[in-house]
Amino acid sequence: PHFVLLSSFSAKLRAVVRAAASSGGPRPPYTTLAVSQPQQFVTHVELHRPEKLNAMSRAFWREMVELFSELAGNPDCRVVVFSGAGKMFTAGIDLMDMASDVLQPVGEDTARISWNLRKKIAEYQETFSVIERCPKPVVVAVHGACIGGGVDLITACDIRLCTQDAWFQVKVSRCRRGGFMGGASRNARGRRCLVNELALTARKMFADEAASSGLVSRVFADKEAMMAGAMELAGEIAGRSPVGVQGTKVNLLYSRDHSVAEGLDYMASWNMSMLQTEDLMKSAQAALEKKSPKTVAFSKL
Amino acid sequence: PHFVLLSSFSAKLRAVVRAAASSGGPRPPYTTLAVSQPQQFVTHVELHRPEKLNAMSRAFWREMVELFSELAGNPDCRVVVFSGAGKMFTAGIDLMDMASDVLQPVGEDTARISWNLRKKIAEYQETFSVIERCPKPVVVAVHGACIGGGVDLITACDIRLCTQDAWFQVKVSRCRRGGFMGGASRNARGRRCLVNELALTARKMFADEAASSGLVSRVFADKEAMMAGAMELAGEIAGRSPVGVQGTKVNLLYSRDHSVAEGLDYMASWNMSMLQTEDLMKSAQAALEKKSPKTVAFSKL
Amino acid sequence: PHFVLLSSFSAKLRAVVRAAASSGGPRPPYTTLAVSQPQQFVTHVELHRPEKLNAMSRAFWREMVELFSELAGNPDCRVVVFSGAGKMFTAGIDLMDMASDVLQPVGEDTARISWNLRKKIAEYQETFSVIERCPKPVVVAVHGACIGGGVDLITACDIRLCTQDAWFQVKVSRCRRGGFMGGASRNARGRRCLVNELALTARKMFADEAASSGLVSRVFADKEAMMAGAMELAGEIAGRSPVGVQGTKVNLLYSRDHSVAEGLDYMASWNMSMLQTEDLMKSAQAALEKKSPKTVAFSKL
Amino acid sequence: PHFVLLSSFSAKLRAVVRAAASSGGPRPPYTTLAVSQPQQFVTHVELHRPEKLNAMSRAFWREMVELFSELAGNPDCRVVVFSGAGKMFTAGIDLMDMASDVLQPVGEDTARISWNLRKKIAEYQETFSVIERCPKPVVVAVHGACIGGGVDLITACDIRLCTQDAWFQVKVSRCRRGGFMGGASRNARGRRCLVNELALTARKMFADEAASSGLVSRVFADKEAMMAGAMELAGEIAGRSPVGVQGTKVNLLYSRDHSVAEGLDYMASWNMSMLQTEDLMKSAQAALEKKSPKTVAFSKL
Amino acid sequence: PHFVLLSSFSAKLRAVVRAAASSGGPRPPYTTLAVSQPQQFVTHVELHRPEKLNAMSRAFWREMVELFSELAGNPDCRVVVFSGAGKMFTAGIDLMDMASDVLQPVGEDTARISWNLRKKIAEYQETFSVIERCPKPVVVAVHGACIGGGVDLITACDIRLCTQDAWFQVKVSRCRRGGFMGGASRNARGRRCLVNELALTARKMFADEAASSGLVSRVFADKEAMMAGAMELAGEIAGRSPVGVQGTKVNLLYSRDHSVAEGLDYMASWNMSMLQTEDLMKSAQAALEKKSPKTVAFSKL
Amino acid sequence: PHFVLLSSFSAKLRAVVRAAASSGGPRPPYTTLAVSQPQQFVTHVELHRPEKLNAMSRAFWREMVELFSELAGNPDCRVVVFSGAGKMFTAGIDLMDMASDVLQPVGEDTARISWNLRKKIAEYQETFSVIERCPKPVVVAVHGACIGGGVDLITACDIRLCTQDAWFQVKVSRCRRGGFMGGASRNARGRRCLVNELALTARKMFADEAASSGLVSRVFADKEAMMAGAMELAGEIAGRSPVGVQGTKVNLLYSRDHSVAEGLDYMASWNMSMLQTEDLMKSAQAALEKKSPKTVAFSKL
Repeated sequence: PHFVLLSSFSAKLRAVVRAAASSGGPRPPYTTLAVSQPQQFVTHVELHRPEKLNAMSRAFWREMVELFSELAGNPDCRVVVFSGAGKMFTAGIDLMDMASDVLQPVGEDTARISWNLRKKIAEYQETFSVIERCPKPVVVAVHGACIGGGVDLITACDIRLCTQDAWFQVKVSRCRRGGFMGGASRNARGRRCLVNELALTARKMFADEAASSGLVSRVFADKEAMMAGAMELAGEIAGRSPVGVQGTKVNLLYSRDHSVAEGLDYMASWNMSMLQTEDLMKSAQAALEKKSPKTVAFSKL
Repeated sequence: PHFVLLSSFSAKLRAVVRAAASSGGPRPPYTTLAVSQPQQFVTHVELHRPEKLNAMSRAFWREMVELFSELAGNPDCRVVVFSGAGKMFTAGIDLMDMASDVLQPVGEDTARISWNLRKKIAEYQETFSVIERCPKPVVVAVHGACIGGGVDLITACDIRLCTQDAWFQVKVSRCRRGGFMGGASRNARGRRCLVNELALTARKMFADEAASSGLVSRVFADKEAMMAGAMELAGEIAGRSPVGVQGTKVNLLYSRDHSVAEGLDYMASWNMSMLQTEDLMKSAQAALEKKSPKTVAFSKL
Repeated sequence: PHFVLLSSFSAKLRAVVRAAASSGGPRPPYTTLAVSQPQQFVTHVELHRPEKLNAMSRAFWREMVELFSELAGNPDCRVVVFSGAGKMFTAGIDLMDMASDVLQPVGEDTARISWNLRKKIAEYQETFSVIERCPKPVVVAVHGACIGGGVDLITACDIRLCTQDAWFQVKVSRCRRGGFMGGASRNARGRRCLVNELALTARKMFADEAASSGLVSRVFADKEAMMAGAMELAGEIAGRSPVGVQGTKVNLLYSRDHSVAEGLDYMASWNMSMLQTEDLMKSAQAALEKKSPKTVAFSKL
Repeated sequence: PHFVLLSSFSAKLRAVVRAAASSGGPRPPYTTLAVSQPQQFVTHVELHRPEKLNAMSRAFWREMVELFSELAGNPDCRVVVFSGAGKMFTAGIDLMDMASDVLQPVGEDTARISWNLRKKIAEYQETFSVIERCPKPVVVAVHGACIGGGVDLITACDIRLCTQDAWFQVKVSRCRRGGFMGGASRNARGRRCLVNELALTARKMFADEAASSGLVSRVFADKEAMMAGAMELAGEIAGRSPVGVQGTKVNLLYSRDHSVAEGLDYMASWNMSMLQTEDLMKSAQAALEKKSPKTVAFSKL
Repeated sequence: PHFVLLSSFSAKLRAVVRAAASSGGPRPPYTTLAVSQPQQFVTHVELHRPEKLNAMSRAFWREMVELFSELAGNPDCRVVVFSGAGKMFTAGIDLMDMASDVLQPVGEDTARISWNLRKKIAEYQETFSVIERCPKPVVVAVHGACIGGGVDLITACDIRLCTQDAWFQVKVSRCRRGGFMGGASRNARGRRCLVNELALTARKMFADEAASSGLVSRVFADKEAMMAGAMELAGEIAGRSPVGVQGTKVNLLYSRDHSVAEGLDYMASWNMSMLQTEDLMKSAQAALEKKSPKTVAFSKL
Repeated sequence: PHFVLLSSFSAKLRAVVRAAASSGGPRPPYTTLAVSQPQQFVTHVELHRPEKLNAMSRAFWREMVELFSELAGNPDCRVVVFSGAGKMFTAGIDLMDMASDVLQPVGEDTARISWNLRKKIAEYQETFSVIERCPKPVVVAVHGACIGGGVDLITACDIRLCTQDAWFQVKVSRCRRGGFMGGASRNARGRRCLVNELALTARKMFADEAASSGLVSRVFADKEAMMAGAMELAGEIAGRSPVGVQGTKVNLLYSRDHSVAEGLDYMASWNMSMLQTEDLMKSAQAALEKKSPKTVAFSKL
């Protein structure tokens, strides 16, 4: 039932996806991320080190923070699609590149080594926290393997899609090399029993279980179908009021971490100004005229 | 598997339901809600503006607060069944009636308009918060469309049922006209990925997805079957110790918003007196005699 | 799909399970719990009062605290498998044995009776809280009935398995005799609608619903298959770095009760020392040599 | 140093105070509270049952909720001065009037009596919580005795003044008849050691200790001086931007109960609209022209 | 003003104090604590290793937990007075005795050493947390030096007194050997600026500053006067309703760590049973007859 | 008693202070801050726009973030002294420079203006939050006026000193132009009554009241004495173990915003590694040899 047929996507979207696929990879200042704009207001970010199975290197950590800080303030970006180039989404942390950080820590005694490690861990965590702090929704599309740090990354995204051949592996407990970045923390609510099992045994979870457990909301037949689906979803979001969409992301994240009463109070304080947007009237007008919200020209945000 | 066959309900219950259906609509002081007592200790509340698709008007906000405040202290009500009259559960907020509140806000500058809007939003939120504050469990039964504010309403209820033809639409981000009342907040835990997708795209969710995602706990073939099922469920609850049932609702809501350790502590402080109820002995006696708890005459609460 | 075939387990594991089954029951100082070590680093704890349907007596409360306090500091135990002997997992609280505690409370006025009841309740809660405080993961395997306090017990465990014939019943609201120990509190997040229904009606939940709702992560054909599956799972966990596994349990529990930001911060402070473990290098070495982590001799913890 | 000389108040203010003093007591619908408006935007509320030492009766609980709910939405009230008529501020709860509520509780078993008592307690707490929920600042002026429930009342006020002859007594532990309304809760932070001593011994605290411990911010020579001081302070507040003043009260209360980071976040969401007030420009203009804010005509709120 | 004259204490109380002073030191099973009962319902606990300046040894940690666990359930103890024998209150941790725990930690790698240290730290913290968990109020009386762990100890007590010659030193930052037990945590609210200064510089704080900053609530001329004052205070508390006194301690601690709204809710749930105590009527009766609460014979708790 | 005599400072410290005073003002990249290193490990930061009364301009916000981010990782800085050049500490926000940000906000409708204002407010808040995030303690020394945003700044510092002629003014409610940066939030605990009065009336608070209310911990006769005192205090801190000092700051801030139980847990997780520092042995050795900690050469951090 979670299986969405390829044929439900338009030829145009497929073309968009193919264009993105042939975009030629990262351009400066990025070396690990390929960034393009396949539709108006939609930014496509591709993890692009296919020869290294998109393993996360030190350059990657730095570039993620830089890119999402830029996107957060860029009015031409209203939604982000995030995917991986090549054979799989990501093999996780690039141990060769990161070894010196974690395996050969610096400091003159245990306390100083610990202090320096904590700084490193906080930097890694920041890589994924910028995704949450960016008020633009992030749709992540996973194919093939999504290992270790990859799970941390996707749990920081707002909407998760995957292909039928995708699999996920937490690797938290094996030697704790990948588990310090918060995927477990972001995921620990909801289906605790399953989360515990995955985290404690590092077994693989496949697409069906990912869908039935709620890790992803839709499974597609193959990568092409998934990318078309992701672009269609992103187009839907991009066509709506940015005041509404971004305010929704802010409030959903707030609600996740607070009691219901606090979530309601925050929402009231937020909307006392945001409801004064002209987008409200524009949307109502379009609805009366039976037009799609996509036809409305909302002001920049 | 979530499909419950109509035949499993007794003729008597069907009669009850039909009687309720023919109750003739709201009676003063209510104009939008029809209130009846189909069984002992069971109150049936029906959203009853079928000609307006049960849209939520200003009268509705006021009457919900009044009614649930009354039910909270009424010993003849031990459980509430909530449903909608006519073709659908509810089309959401009645924009025509509410327009002046939200689209033409009052105040001499932006701050004062914001202040007044915040008061309005808080009043709307209160409509649904009274459902939570009422210690009697509320079983909501949804058929047809449940849109916008309707989703906010049902997420404040304790047990949710729907028909096979029901669908749900959050409408949060379209123009934020419906999303400020807390459905997203009440729902944000658990399946975040799906909640995010629904809130950010305003796509419809159908009965199957509502069941598999946990929004509803049971799906019925049609409204008649659902109402019979709801009445049977309500009868089960009404037959139990009111000290036990209402204390359970209070503690379940407390646990939702607190850590496990705090939930345990609160439960201990609550039960140090509540376990001293005579209902305990009465129930134990009935169990020994192989009688149903429904045969026990528990004192008023 | 949740149905795991018996044939997928090795003959050796089946032998292990049979050995455990014939272990002869509790040995001093335990009278309600049979404790054995079927594999290296794996402790098997069996609720063992089959003639009383494993009902929870006063001796049981005391022995659970004693046993899990011991296991918490025992380096030969890296994971616990918990199951029930005889026809079912447990019938819940042993009302005959406990009656004087709850039904005939002590004290010269209502306040003093309440004070004493609160102490009793806190003691009962402690029985299950020791499972969470023990940093070794606990895999619980349920067959047949799991009633009342049994649900409280299993929700304090980390990974839950059951047989196809298992059923669960909360009994919270009937007369509140079983619901004060926190199962509802530990379970209240996630699928609230279903949790509410179960707690308010005390209806039975069967294996399929337990799996689809996330109460258990896997369903097995029969007890023998389940025990073999549990032992295999436990063996997987026992073979991994104890620094990694136990740190994972501590952090998963912390995350459950805190915001994501607080979970990340705690994880960073935890791992600044724990990442300095030699297990990291040992695991990396084994991975390079294509060996299983089980072949690595991790130091005691 | 906390002693403010009478001579520092103008003849006009003294006249105001005397006028208030001769106001003749409560007028319908109030029987325990005398309400007047001694200055523009300043409401004076007087506990007015001098013949009963201003003891808090059932009528008082009801009238407080009614009055402060009205003041919360009344644009002619920007600040409240609260004081007591006659010989003392208040002797606390009127035991004769309340006896049936607390000493002869209603219900057929201990659980039902407890349930009803909890409702009563919540109603009493509400009496003082309305003071916090009202966004207008409340200046309380205490002379003579302030006992039991009186301490609960004043700790819910924003600014506290007293005369040199004032004394305070918590009475929490004596028999718990007065301590269930939250004074200890509102006061428990800050000087815990002293709070504990007062709550556990019920000893009297005099004006000097009240000032040095921060319970009151200023001590006056006598009631006349205190009332003049209170009116001057209220006049200061009434002359400022109501958007600024009431937003400050809301945010101060929010900060009291949240972490610093959460307080900052809420403040940012609040002020993103409130800073758009015209009052800002009006105040700036007045400041440039060296005029007092009192000369500015701020719009209603 | 904080200086209480010796003459205000009765000859009887002085005799009591002298008797306690000559009690001859610890008796089995205690080796570091002398325990006596100078008045009915009052337990005097004396840190009694004067030849070691009452330094805290491994035996001390163990005995504190044992003693306060016993006192928590002992109905003959309604209040505890805690003081130090000999020249000073305490010199803090006994470095010679503790050295092996902290300076020569056990474990095969940094992670395991850290794990073991964390267990040790938690054990030390427990020593003082038992004081909070014991529902009987603890009055601590400090003379001479109170260093390092001593500050941690006294901040866990409910009421703090000291002599004019007392001084306090936090020693947190010097080398962190004493600061891990929570004094700073218990004290961090209120006067943060001063707390920070003391913790960061380890400078001494003398009696005057301790009083003006709220660390102690009263300063006495010498130890004899202080002990008489402590006994008088304890006698006051011991004479009150134990239901009231112990419930007050529980609720004061709860309020310290929760928002005001949560404190009120907990208090209502607590008092719905506790207000049903017969002590209420006994106290009211005594008050009507102008008798002291000390003359009332409250039942055991 | 808070008055510290000038003569208690050494000639050397006075020379240090004078040298700092003649440092010639800001050097690139800073234009509003003069940064120097008067002693080893001590950084002196001076607000240096005396001709503008040290008003906070847009350059100031930017430079604060840049400077404290640098200091956070600079091992030559172990403690910061913060003061103001010229006639006063600071006149608060530079309205002329900031006007366009706040008074002429950007955006095409109210919602977009609000969105942009929120970003600005968050940026201003960040200016002071970097002081808390920097693990090096910050000693602030205030002379003359400290207005509006200045109060926000100093409440983010760890230790606060002032001169006898200093005064403080919150200005929150006047027109809310200065109150959105969190001073009230950081200060709202403790003496709420006084905080409320200051925030609601914007009256001045002088040095005596600042000391008795705990806003500052010490008052000095004049600026020269205060700077000598600040340098002496900073020297004390700089001479201690940086592992101890910086860990103390981290834990004090954590404790401020969490319950006592959570503070203890965090402290245990922190110290399980930090207690393994060689500084512990070095400090113990120095203590045994009766040497000052200042003579110990602690490794960099």
